[in-house]
Amino acid sequence: MDAAHLARAVELASLGPSWGPNPRVGCVIVAADGTVLGEGWHRGAGTPHAEPAALADARSRGLDVAGATAYVTLEPCAHTGRTGPCTDALTEARIGAVRYAVADPNPLAAGGGAVLRSRGIDARHEAFGPARAINRRWLGAAETGRPWVIAKWAQTLDGRTAAVDGTSFWVTGEEARAHAHGVRAEVDAILVGTGTVLTDDPSLSARPPHVDDAHQPLRAVMGLRDTFGAKVWRDENALALATRDPHEALGMLAAREVRTVVVEGGGTVTTAFLRAGLVDEVHAYIAPAILGAGTAAVGDLGIGTMGGALRGQDVTATALGVDTLVTAFFQRGPQ
Amino acid sequence: MDAAHLARAVELASLGPSWGPNPRVGCVIVAADGTVLGEGWHRGAGTPHAEPAALADARSRGLDVAGATAYVTLEPCAHTGRTGPCTDALTEARIGAVRYAVADPNPLAAGGGAVLRSRGIDARHEAFGPARAINRRWLGAAETGRPWVIAKWAQTLDGRTAAVDGTSFWVTGEEARAHAHGVRAEVDAILVGTGTVLTDDPSLSARPPHVDDAHQPLRAVMGLRDTFGAKVWRDENALALATRDPHEALGMLAAREVRTVVVEGGGTVTTAFLRAGLVDEVHAYIAPAILGAGTAAVGDLGIGTMGGALRGQDVTATALGVDTLVTAFFQRGPQ
Repeated sequence: MDAAHLARAVELASLGPSWGPNPRVGCVIVAADGTVLGEGWHRGAGTPHAEPAALADARSRGLDVAGATAYVTLEPCAHTGRTGPCTDALTEARIGAVRYAVADPNPLAAGGGAVLRSRGIDARHEAFGPARAINRRWLGAAETGRPWVIAKWAQTLDGRTAAVDGTSFWVTGEEARAHAHGVRAEVDAILVGTGTVLTDDPSLSARPPHVDDAHQPLRAVMGLRDTFGAKVWRDENALALATRDPHEALGMLAAREVRTVVVEGGGTVTTAFLRAGLVDEVHAYIAPAILGAGTAAVGDLGIGTMGGALRGQDVTATALGVDTLVTAFFQRGPQ
Repeated sequence: MDAAHLARAVELASLGPSWGPNPRVGCVIVAADGTVLGEGWHRGAGTPHAEPAALADARSRGLDVAGATAYVTLEPCAHTGRTGPCTDALTEARIGAVRYAVADPNPLAAGGGAVLRSRGIDARHEAFGPARAINRRWLGAAETGRPWVIAKWAQTLDGRTAAVDGTSFWVTGEEARAHAHGVRAEVDAILVGTGTVLTDDPSLSARPPHVDDAHQPLRAVMGLRDTFGAKVWRDENALALATRDPHEALGMLAAREVRTVVVEGGGTVTTAFLRAGLVDEVHAYIAPAILGAGTAAVGDLGIGTMGGALRGQDVTATALGVDTLVTAFFQRGPQ
């Protein structure tokens, strides 16, 4: 019963954007007899949270939620940010019980469950895996206080991203490149090094196929070299990170409320993030091609023995035309 | 109608062994009214071909095949090898028509269709993809006159087969290793370099899980170094190839009637086969691991630019535990 309502709340949550400073949250308000009174989800920073949205939905249908149970994918917030505390909205509506699937890891917003209980509302944390999965990146960022880092690259089967003469167009095919554009449209920022800007002059826009108004992530360029005049600077949705230190770069992005960033290389930048233990997720697009020589996808990490290899988990392998996308999550290293 | 019978013939063919000097062949004999009169398949060198087996099946059921149509996955042979010509067996049984899905590429055995037609039998080549697919390796070997080469290796995501200190156990997990044992049990020979024998002293046996009496491929060791006393020489099912030239090595294997060989490395050997344009199929077992340094899966091939990369096709990507097996077929290079 609870699981079905929480599953519906996750469905609602997934309607919200995966980018932006806030998590995706869904809420279903259910009467004692099982009638759904209201549904809502968070549509992005500056708009109502899922709980007030669900309360408004019930109100708009002329339904009274007094004594009803609110199922929420994330612990209701107890603080005033861009909007008021959800704990107050739920209290004022005389909600009888709250079930939330994930405890809020954000120290500023957390404690909502306790606040509700102190007001006599039967609020309880009820762990529900899919609710955690849908915000895996946001939760990771909240727990570490830095953006979630996805390292993305395209390589030959034998791990080369460019040939001996520096050519790298194209390693992978159209389907793989389209997929990568879809990932760009899901995140807050793309990060490349100044070397990549100087060599390839990429536009770093998100151009997923069949989407006219894709979300455009912030374009971040890391490094100390001058990239004046490059395409990446064509509008203000770009940021220079004048450092070679990945920790510093992430600090600057965090200050811009970036929660998720795709590090797209080159190899030096990707290697620096891996070496610093700052990569949470890897997306390797693997072409069925063999070069035998050229630029390695990943450079020296100071790992000397097989037992020391970084090991990913929760692996997926997806066929994209002739190419294969392998994704994996990596435990954070020492930081 | 024909397609259904040919599909059944392919099913029968698949009951035969994938190793050995002969192709897998299936045969269905069908009366004018659609009744299946007999079925047969080839069980390996020295046993009856599919056509005589199907004729014997019909005979054992007391059925007369005069005027019936024989559906065969491969053109009936017209020569006497370990057994007599199938064209004679079909003629003597007064078969009325023959449909064969693949023309025999073997110059010694080919011409069966023409022989049958010269005897007034309505014999016709009817191309059927699955019949070609089931013998893809054998047909490739027949067309080139050398064994079909599968290059197999286990690598990290970033294309390393061993760490800086030489450790390589284990790159991939149990499921991937079990799968590789299954592939060994499908082929005629495994080939490794003397370096691998001296470093790892592998037994090179096929040990697929849940199989007690797996087919054991010939163990071939290529190179000029002395490997006396290594495990690989524990019985006579092993062959020293005292050469560093892949062409020569394949010639020696062909003389032993090897049609399919898995080249399992090390990197020097694999690279030599790739460089010589002698790799038909690649099996890369990819672990979700990152090393950043160590031994590259493939060494220098003299390819300097992305446009020159070897490109595979008919790619498959299979999840094996946390690992991913990518297979691809490669066009033969200049030879």
